[in-house]
Order: sequence, then C-alpha cells, then structure tokens
Amino acid sequence: MTFRASILSLYPDMFPGPLGHSLAGRALEQGKWVCEATQIRDFATGKHKNVDDTPAGGGAGMVLRADVLGRAIDHVTGIVDNRPRLLMSPRGKPLTQEQVRLFSAAPGLVIVCGRFEGVDQRVIDGRQLEEVSIGDYILSGGEVAAITLLDAIVRLLPGVMGNDASGVYESFEDNLLEHPHYTKPAEWDGRTIPEVLKSGNHKKVDEWRREQAVELTRARRPDLLDK
Amino acid sequence: MTFRASILSLYPDMFPGPLGHSLAGRALEQGKWVCEATQIRDFATGKHKNVDDTPAGGGAGMVLRADVLGRAIDHVTGIVDNRPRLLMSPRGKPLTQEQVRLFSAAPGLVIVCGRFEGVDQRVIDGRQLEEVSIGDYILSGGEVAAITLLDAIVRLLPGVMGNDASGVYESFEDNLLEHPHYTKPAEWDGRTIPEVLKSGNHKKVDEWRREQAVELTRARRPDLLDK
Repeated sequence: MTFRASILSLYPDMFPGPLGHSLAGRALEQGKWVCEATQIRDFATGKHKNVDDTPAGGGAGMVLRADVLGRAIDHVTGIVDNRPRLLMSPRGKPLTQEQVRLFSAAPGLVIVCGRFEGVDQRVIDGRQLEEVSIGDYILSGGEVAAITLLDAIVRLLPGVMGNDASGVYESFEDNLLEHPHYTKPAEWDGRTIPEVLKSGNHKKVDEWRREQAVELTRARRPDLLDK
Repeated sequence: MTFRASILSLYPDMFPGPLGHSLAGRALEQGKWVCEATQIRDFATGKHKNVDDTPAGGGAGMVLRADVLGRAIDHVTGIVDNRPRLLMSPRGKPLTQEQVRLFSAAPGLVIVCGRFEGVDQRVIDGRQLEEVSIGDYILSGGEVAAITLLDAIVRLLPGVMGNDASGVYESFEDNLLEHPHYTKPAEWDGRTIPEVLKSGNHKKVDEWRREQAVELTRARRPDLLDK
C-alpha cells in the first residue's frame, strides 16, 4: 500500500521541496509514497477570490475562511477517506517519535497548512482536524511543519531505509539521547578516539555507550529520564 | 545588517527550497537575509571522496568524519566569524521561540546538517558546535530541521513581517496557546460565530479570548502553565 500525503496549502509549490531529494526523494520516485499538494485558493469564490478575512471580534492578522478551506478539504477527501486529517499548528499536540510511527502505519495523511493569524475554528471542529505542533516556536506557515512531519514519516515507511536497524536503535526510542560517535581518522586536530572504543571488547563498548547516553540525557534532557 | 545563514550539508540543493517562497522568499529577494549552502563533500580527500566511515567500537550506520567536516567549517567561517555555530541534532537543546528570537538578533548562523548515524564528536567539541533540536522525533537529516529553524528566524528579522504586531501577540510569547479564531461568513455548515465576538464589547472579547486560551492550554499543554 502506498502512503498518500495530500497537502492543502496556499503555497503548493513548496512541495515536495526538500522531500524531493535524498531518502524521501528516492522513495517518492520509487512510488513508496505519493505527495499531492492542493492550492486552497482554487476553492475561493467571488470576484476577489479571497481566502482570508478579518477576525470576528477584532484584532491583528487575518483568518483563513471556513467555507473556502472546507470546500478544499471536501474536494481532497471525497465521500470516504479514512486518513487522519491534520492541521499543522503551534496550538497542537507536540509531535513525538511515537506519534510519527503511528502516522507511518496509516494509509496516508490529509495535512492542512495554516497561514495568517489562524484558521476559522469551525472548520477545525466541523472537519475534525487534529492539530499537530512540531515544536514550541512560530513558523511563517504550516508548510515547513508539514515537510518536517513527512520527512520523519517517510523514512519509516516499509523499504525506505536501507538498514532497517537504523530505524530501531536511535534517539528517543528508549528515552535516551544518543551516545557520542567517532570514526576514522584515529587522530584529528590533536583529538583521539576514546580508548574503550578501540578495545574490541563489545561488552565494555556497550556499557560505555549506555553510560554516555544516560549522562548526556541527564545533563540536557532530564525530562526524558522521567518517562 | 543582513542576516547571513551559512549551511553545511551533503544536500545543498535542498536550500533555499521552501524558504525561497512566500515570506522568507520575498525577504531573500529583498536582501534581508542571505542563504549560502556549502557541499560538505567538496572537502573530502582521497580517491573515493568519502565523507563518512564506520563507527569506532562497531555498530550500525555511518559517522560523518571530523576531518572532512572540520575542513568544511573552517572554510566557511574563515579566521574570524562571530556567528553561532549550530549542529541540527535530535540530541540538542530543544528549540524555543525565545531561542529563535535570540538567533534572529545574531549577525547570522553557521548551520551544520547531520546525516547518517551521527557526527564525529571531536568536531562537535573542537569547533564548538551547539546542538539544537527542533523536536523529539527523528528526521532523515538536519536539512529539514535547518529549514524549519530559518523559517522561524527570518520572519522575525527587521522589516520582514508587514504587521509588526503579529510578531508579538502570538502563541508561546505568554506561555498560552492561542484562542480560537473566527471570520466571515457568519454561518457555515450550520455553525455560527460565538455571540460575544459580535457584541462589539472589546473588554468582553478580550476576556473571552483569554479564558479560551487558558482553557485550551490547560487541556492540551498543562506544561506551559507551569512556566
């Protein structure tokens, strides 16, 4: 089954963008996922084809209209569509690797990219959009967030990563940050590789890595150790 | 002063990518920021121009070599460069809007995009790379993370946002998620706009919005209320 990503945006030309390169780009070429971007503006009506208007109750910024976005979503989903429908938004549930894994097992996603001050709440409620946040910072719109989400998902799709082990042993899966890595040359800029890594003693190497990971997590992300 | 972003990547063609569109794209055209992407591979030596090698101590994946990346960084920074040097990495300090604001006041950034299993720790230490994470999920590489970081920064650069107020009153600045937004039409899909927003009573509107923001934050992000 091919993972189908349908994106609704005022800037559909941003897609696939970086997702057309490297790992995600090869997977796209190989048909392991599909990336369809729909222009929300195509569903505007009236002489000026407005997609936004001033906020009810006053205030700064503009709000994406429920009627225009609603029509765009209904066009993309048709009558039956069992894909999760997301709205990329700083108000959303923070994205985690666990959630990425769940999304990667879905048949695909419908992703609405917000712009302006926000999206009319009625379309969020009426079309059951699940708000997802990629982090506690503000972007110019949801497009870059959607690209980030899809990059995380696509690498987990079946057959995308060459070495399947890489998908398992990595940061967050065990709530620990990754231990430091070293490779050739043996000496660089006066700095050497820790002796234990050259010992050939796998048990000691594993112990050292685990210690380093715990130490790093304690120093940088004590919140992860509480989980 | 123009904000100068120097990116080091194995996929420099990913830049500016989405940052060449919309708000960041216009700012780029207007010279409000500069986006230079350098190919790390250009600094590899030897017959095969290898940029990575197997991890010291064994294990899956490949590690980006300190000597190759070190040369690339030294080439980009020259003798004197007072810009922060970042490595996009899931091991890093989680990015916040406060940190975005600090970065946007810098003369620019040098951003290293990791790939493979990781980057040799010696170049992180030796070139004082500050590890920054955009969230608790794994990407195929640092490129999409760098694009996300830059999108957040560029909108805060002087003169980039038309309405300066939009930069101040938004999610996270007061540790509250944003209240719901509504705009025309008055009725959509059987759903109306809350009466209070049509009252013309600005005090009541403000109170309602504040209540909604607190309620939403309590429900979705109680961690923000503790701050």
